[in-house]
Amino acid sequence: MVAGHGNLMDAGPKSRSERRREDTRRKLMRAAYEIIADRGLEGLVIQEITQFADVGYGTFYNHFPSKDAVVDAVIESALLRILEISDRLGEIMPDPVEAFGMDMRICLHGSRTDRVWGWFLIRSTLSRGQRLRLGIADSLKQSIEEGVAAGHFKCDDIEMARHTIGGLILLGTINLVSVTMPDDYEGRLVTTALKSLGISAAKIESVLAKPHPELNLPPFLEAIDDL
Amino acid sequence: MVAGHGNLMDAGPKSRSERRREDTRRKLMRAAYEIIADRGLEGLVIQEITQFADVGYGTFYNHFPSKDAVVDAVIESALLRILEISDRLGEIMPDPVEAFGMDMRICLHGSRTDRVWGWFLIRSTLSRGQRLRLGIADSLKQSIEEGVAAGHFKCDDIEMARHTIGGLILLGTINLVSVTMPDDYEGRLVTTALKSLGISAAKIESVLAKPHPELNLPPFLEAIDDL
Repeated sequence: MVAGHGNLMDAGPKSRSERRREDTRRKLMRAAYEIIADRGLEGLVIQEITQFADVGYGTFYNHFPSKDAVVDAVIESALLRILEISDRLGEIMPDPVEAFGMDMRICLHGSRTDRVWGWFLIRSTLSRGQRLRLGIADSLKQSIEEGVAAGHFKCDDIEMARHTIGGLILLGTINLVSVTMPDDYEGRLVTTALKSLGISAAKIESVLAKPHPELNLPPFLEAIDDL
Repeated sequence: MVAGHGNLMDAGPKSRSERRREDTRRKLMRAAYEIIADRGLEGLVIQEITQFADVGYGTFYNHFPSKDAVVDAVIESALLRILEISDRLGEIMPDPVEAFGMDMRICLHGSRTDRVWGWFLIRSTLSRGQRLRLGIADSLKQSIEEGVAAGHFKCDDIEMARHTIGGLILLGTINLVSVTMPDDYEGRLVTTALKSLGISAAKIESVLAKPHPELNLPPFLEAIDDL
């Protein structure tokens, strides 16, 4: 997506009609995103999306062939954003345990500062469509596998380590969007997760002491022409 | 509820109108339950419940003052059912670690064998109404506290132990209702949970070797006049 954002600028100025087309597509995706965050994706209909986006019903089909297509585009976009954060942290933090802990902190903190994002994650993770949940699960499993292979993490059952940490993130996200949680909440969740992977208390302390790095990502659902 | 079930029989035969009244109340609760399981409780309206229950719209108000009242009654009923299982296990299993492990196994297995129940748990746990989630969290926290106080469980942060185990149950339930999981799945989740509480591998093995006990509970949403 970052490369895509670069390409967007490389492509030179866009015509007014191109910009308007992108703008409408973005509005439709943002509408689907906010409706899913508000009440989940079951029972969602195209008319609801176009009304929310303040776009004519017929216009929808100039951008997406079906309701599922816009939902898929939003979910894919969210998954890309999550994977992009992991990748970026992997680049800028040479210590994989620090990068893993920071990824979890940023993920949880994102739901504290943006409840729409948090609710979107919860509702799309828990819907019958499983793309986002399985995508996050795969990425988490891969990080744990790499950490175990490199000797950073200790664990007998990678699948269950993924469940433990995924469960902490999911329950943590629900609490962060529903209740006002204390400032150290994300840190305690990360501590619990890292401990379950055999990381020492001293190392955990140093992971939590790191400041949040500047990721310089474009706002979510803005760089949409990449999709 | 068990006592209530007894009272129900002690009260002697009911008149036809009493039975019909109870039957209608049950239908409305079951309708709300199934709709929540299907798509969550956001946007639920009374007409949807009465149509699903095949009951006249006006009849609804003979039983519940509002939509929230029927939803609350169903959620309270589900929470009572969950607590009742814990209490019953506490009575029939003298070893608290075995009772704790069995409770988690039964809870997970219930979602494998009855996906409507599993979806209901997920959707009502994750809705903005938090009664079920907080009720389960309290009960889980209390069990962990008792286990720590009695020297059975080891843990430095009870709140985070509850998060770890609650997260495993939540993610496990989502998997059990969405995908076909292997037969040993519940056992692996319980193993992970007990290990996080410092239980030895040998003890965990003996916990998992116990057969599911016969609980003799009335079917869910049948003994409704208790509420």
